[in-house]
Amino acid sequence: MKPVFRSRGDFRWEGIEVLPYKPAGTHFRDISRQLLFGSEDGLGCELRYFEIDPGGHSTLERHAHRHAVLIVRGAGRVLVGREVYALETYDGVRIPPWTWHQFRASAQRPLGFLCMVDRERDRPERPSPAELEELRRDAALAEFIRT
Amino acid sequence: MKPVFRSRGDFRWEGIEVLPYKPAGTHFRDISRQLLFGSEDGLGCELRYFEIDPGGHSTLERHAHRHAVLIVRGAGRVLVGREVYALETYDGVRIPPWTWHQFRASAQRPLGFLCMVDRERDRPERPSPAELEELRRDAALAEFIRT
Repeated sequence: MKPVFRSRGDFRWEGIEVLPYKPAGTHFRDISRQLLFGSEDGLGCELRYFEIDPGGHSTLERHAHRHAVLIVRGAGRVLVGREVYALETYDGVRIPPWTWHQFRASAQRPLGFLCMVDRERDRPERPSPAELEELRRDAALAEFIRT
Repeated sequence: MKPVFRSRGDFRWEGIEVLPYKPAGTHFRDISRQLLFGSEDGLGCELRYFEIDPGGHSTLERHAHRHAVLIVRGAGRVLVGREVYALETYDGVRIPPWTWHQFRASAQRPLGFLCMVDRERDRPERPSPAELEELRRDAALAEFIRT
């Protein structure tokens, strides 16, 4: 591995593949993933760059592992637990363990963010129908959530 | 801890202190440190934001732990091992174990970068006079290095 990898502009990098966010599913929309620093870099964490196109969203999910997120492009909103927060470029987000979360880009701008995560981690789980119903009893969450 | 911390613009954040790069020393110049995600975030790594003012530099050092770096502001150069690389915004840098490295901002622009590092890590060491002399036998390194 070379010590330096170059930005190609527009949040793309030489030698870094633009990957699907997840293998398949309809529970996310218009989101890509790039692994900037992965297991071969030998750190305890990975650093990924996710980008959600305007109007798109990540999966509503939760898991034992934590996320440390820094927005580096555009704007949007995030659900953390039972609260929705507006996000602007360079805001930081902490996702605690077992906390429902979902990112949405704004209608006009993408939402691009770096996400630091432990290399060894559990798989995310999505809400059951009963959990989803419970979340949607809150009108603000019902408006926000995409499944 | 709140789930979201806000950018105050200019690579400063609400609730994040702007710290000295190191407690003391003359082996670095015009560099600050902000801990964006630290031990209380419970991940295996920390994410720090360093900013070097125009003309400034980090310490020339090496250590067992690795660095994963993403430039997010300005431009400069970095020494990794025995090579000097030009850096522009959004370039990535991998510092392998026990590899001499030093960052320098350009004369006109700052160099701001995110640095991911294992939470548990060894202390850096600086070159001995003999090691410094050996590095400086290379004219490009002699020009670059600041001590």
